[in-house]
Amino acid sequence: MKVILTKDYDELSKVAAQMLLGEMFQRHERVNLAITAGTTPIGMYEKLVAEVRDKDYFDNVHYYNFDEIPYKSGRREGVTIGDLRELYFTPAAISDEQIHVLDGENYEDQDRRIAEAGGLDAILLGIGADGHYCGNLPSTTSFNDFTTKVDCDDAMKERIAPHFEDRAETPDFYVTMGPRSVMNARHLILFASGEKKAKIMKAFIEGAITDEIPASILKMHPHLTVILDEAAAKLLDKEK
Amino acid sequence: MKVILTKDYDELSKVAAQMLLGEMFQRHERVNLAITAGTTPIGMYEKLVAEVRDKDYFDNVHYYNFDEIPYKSGRREGVTIGDLRELYFTPAAISDEQIHVLDGENYEDQDRRIAEAGGLDAILLGIGADGHYCGNLPSTTSFNDFTTKVDCDDAMKERIAPHFEDRAETPDFYVTMGPRSVMNARHLILFASGEKKAKIMKAFIEGAITDEIPASILKMHPHLTVILDEAAAKLLDKEK
Amino acid sequence: MKVILTKDYDELSKVAAQMLLGEMFQRHERVNLAITAGTTPIGMYEKLVAEVRDKDYFDNVHYYNFDEIPYKSGRREGVTIGDLRELYFTPAAISDEQIHVLDGENYEDQDRRIAEAGGLDAILLGIGADGHYCGNLPSTTSFNDFTTKVDCDDAMKERIAPHFEDRAETPDFYVTMGPRSVMNARHLILFASGEKKAKIMKAFIEGAITDEIPASILKMHPHLTVILDEAAAKLLDKEK
Amino acid sequence: MKVILTKDYDELSKVAAQMLLGEMFQRHERVNLAITAGTTPIGMYEKLVAEVRDKDYFDNVHYYNFDEIPYKSGRREGVTIGDLRELYFTPAAISDEQIHVLDGENYEDQDRRIAEAGGLDAILLGIGADGHYCGNLPSTTSFNDFTTKVDCDDAMKERIAPHFEDRAETPDFYVTMGPRSVMNARHLILFASGEKKAKIMKAFIEGAITDEIPASILKMHPHLTVILDEAAAKLLDKEK
Repeated sequence: MKVILTKDYDELSKVAAQMLLGEMFQRHERVNLAITAGTTPIGMYEKLVAEVRDKDYFDNVHYYNFDEIPYKSGRREGVTIGDLRELYFTPAAISDEQIHVLDGENYEDQDRRIAEAGGLDAILLGIGADGHYCGNLPSTTSFNDFTTKVDCDDAMKERIAPHFEDRAETPDFYVTMGPRSVMNARHLILFASGEKKAKIMKAFIEGAITDEIPASILKMHPHLTVILDEAAAKLLDKEK
Repeated sequence: MKVILTKDYDELSKVAAQMLLGEMFQRHERVNLAITAGTTPIGMYEKLVAEVRDKDYFDNVHYYNFDEIPYKSGRREGVTIGDLRELYFTPAAISDEQIHVLDGENYEDQDRRIAEAGGLDAILLGIGADGHYCGNLPSTTSFNDFTTKVDCDDAMKERIAPHFEDRAETPDFYVTMGPRSVMNARHLILFASGEKKAKIMKAFIEGAITDEIPASILKMHPHLTVILDEAAAKLLDKEK
Repeated sequence: MKVILTKDYDELSKVAAQMLLGEMFQRHERVNLAITAGTTPIGMYEKLVAEVRDKDYFDNVHYYNFDEIPYKSGRREGVTIGDLRELYFTPAAISDEQIHVLDGENYEDQDRRIAEAGGLDAILLGIGADGHYCGNLPSTTSFNDFTTKVDCDDAMKERIAPHFEDRAETPDFYVTMGPRSVMNARHLILFASGEKKAKIMKAFIEGAITDEIPASILKMHPHLTVILDEAAAKLLDKEK
Repeated sequence: MKVILTKDYDELSKVAAQMLLGEMFQRHERVNLAITAGTTPIGMYEKLVAEVRDKDYFDNVHYYNFDEIPYKSGRREGVTIGDLRELYFTPAAISDEQIHVLDGENYEDQDRRIAEAGGLDAILLGIGADGHYCGNLPSTTSFNDFTTKVDCDDAMKERIAPHFEDRAETPDFYVTMGPRSVMNARHLILFASGEKKAKIMKAFIEGAITDEIPASILKMHPHLTVILDEAAAKLLDKEK
């Protein structure tokens, strides 16, 4: 684990963008990236769009979403891929052939598809205040899981409902790459910004590996990079 | 995880030897291997000695022990390195410059030494019927540990005492590479032979990742190879 | 370049077999090997067949021939693939799905096919007394060539005619991976046995890089292993 | 070989900077880069300085110069390292421990030093209108050379004299990493900007591999990236 301390959100966004660009340039052959939606990457995608849009030298880069909350009716694409299109794929003009959608139908195939495409070169992950990453929330998946379907109880439905304008679209399940799927990537990049992440980052970096903090297992990966801004790092033991 | 089923101990020994030879030939620059003592590797070392002895094209291969039970008096080298010398280093005529001893004095330096030497290319591990590997026995280390010292309570002293002709030499502690040290290796090779390992191998391969079975964490590694003979595999679910 | 000096043909065959087995075990995902026919590898294939036959843990290994002399009539497979079947594929019971034939029809596709399959992990090459490797004979290809078709003049037809019982089957052309195709492999393994190779091996190892000795370009590769027996090495400068 | 066409010098500079940052982030352990002085990289170093200065997460990056023209008196450091300090090391506040100087005294040690440090991850190269790279000018080194000393005849002295305010400092020799040293790097990055490079880039990309164009040998490397701006690419065959 390497911890990169940046001074603010802008530097964090820049470092994350540079790291992904580095992966894209690293090989001439197909490069496979799994990337995150959410709020943390907004600044990074802004920078990335400027560098990637209309640049045919990135045609070898392929993208995967690592979780999905489908619409119950199935009338439109899921929440995660929709967010990724808005944040990155559409403004960066990424072609459809480079986008590999995980959804509620094909999740059992996700790990095989990725393996056959040569494996993930990198996966960019956010972390929740509860220690979740992808759809691996406390009590939903176990360390042993590959890509899987998670049934939503009422509490979970309440939690994911805000993603849907029409609450009736809240699904009974979501899908996510599991801990073992994620650990198969060659490079894990986890980033966290802001004071609201300070407590979990202290627990993540300094604490035990426990299924109460699902992300803690990622510390076992031989190539994990953690990017923090000052606010997210403020509770860390200064001695280290 | 790739599981290699061999028909008997001889094939298991051959496959393990071929795999280590493969690592040795893989790079012209320094190759770093951490290897195991014990009974499982006896057949493998016999084969390996024949291939390695007096072959100067293996001068780039360096060896590490991953745990050590020191003699209390400190009058002689520890149990593990002594066994490795007898099983392999001496009959294969490995030079001292290629042997990097972990002992009760230098353990805090082990992870840094290995990182500075370029990291471990492979680590060959046995597994105990209790799910231990290296010196990571249930209730001794946690998943979060790097190389560490383990204090021996009376039960542990009883357990390790048979290693010492003079029981007064039984030490108050031993040292071991911890889970995170092991997970930093580029290739984990775990092998198990015989019916007495059948139960733990079923739990390891098919069961959960839990600190009750310390080795179970190794399943999270992106490049783990498991070698079994038929007897050790006899309880595995045939469908898989 | 690493030069491995073995004492005789048997050790050379063993080392080459171990090196290929090492490549096969190195990755769990698809492994791609291009291998040579001819007389040098006979001993190696004998050893390899014993280790590979009926071992399903090698199902991830795929094989390519790197040159081909087609039958003029097209009534049967070419000379190289025929030899490889006899020497290795048939006795080792390699399945058809693992054999990727280069022939007079598909040669323009060879480099793209290999790139899309992830590139060659290793290529095992012999060397001729005239410094040729694959079908890269002096004055036939240039360093700049990828896989290509070589038209045969009368001298060349005379040279290749002995491969055909019915001389009328001698073709007007052959195909070969070119220097740049070969240099794209991750590991080049070149072996030479016997006194008849001593002179070319001295020129290869100690001499200049020149298109008069086509194989000399291989010295520019960052990962080239040369395996020699004592007879092939007898003219080498002992000081080095 | 991958050819990246950029629209102008600014994009070329940005892509080169991103590629080097990508190498720096690619590994947590020591990263070794050999970088070029001259005029082409001026824009790139400006961008790089802004990203690297005072960023301790780049402490693992080590730098090498690949050629040197020493002052005859030896009273000050050579021309290349002086330029690199001015362009990059000083404004980016790179520490002395990260700078590994090649000079007229230690050149015989350069290849061994680099190998022992783990090899070069990348080498960034310019190209001269005469096809030279590093100090490999036509008729000075041969493809077979490692790091070497080149004696300067009168014509060469005339050529390098403008580097010295006091012409009496023009040396009788210079040193350079040779073709085989350069080919040992894991990634070759060659960039060229401006119309004055258009002719050589056409010859480099479309022409033969010949010692009349020393850089042409670099096309044999399995991982070569070429970055051009529109002016440098203007003579390229548009069909390709």
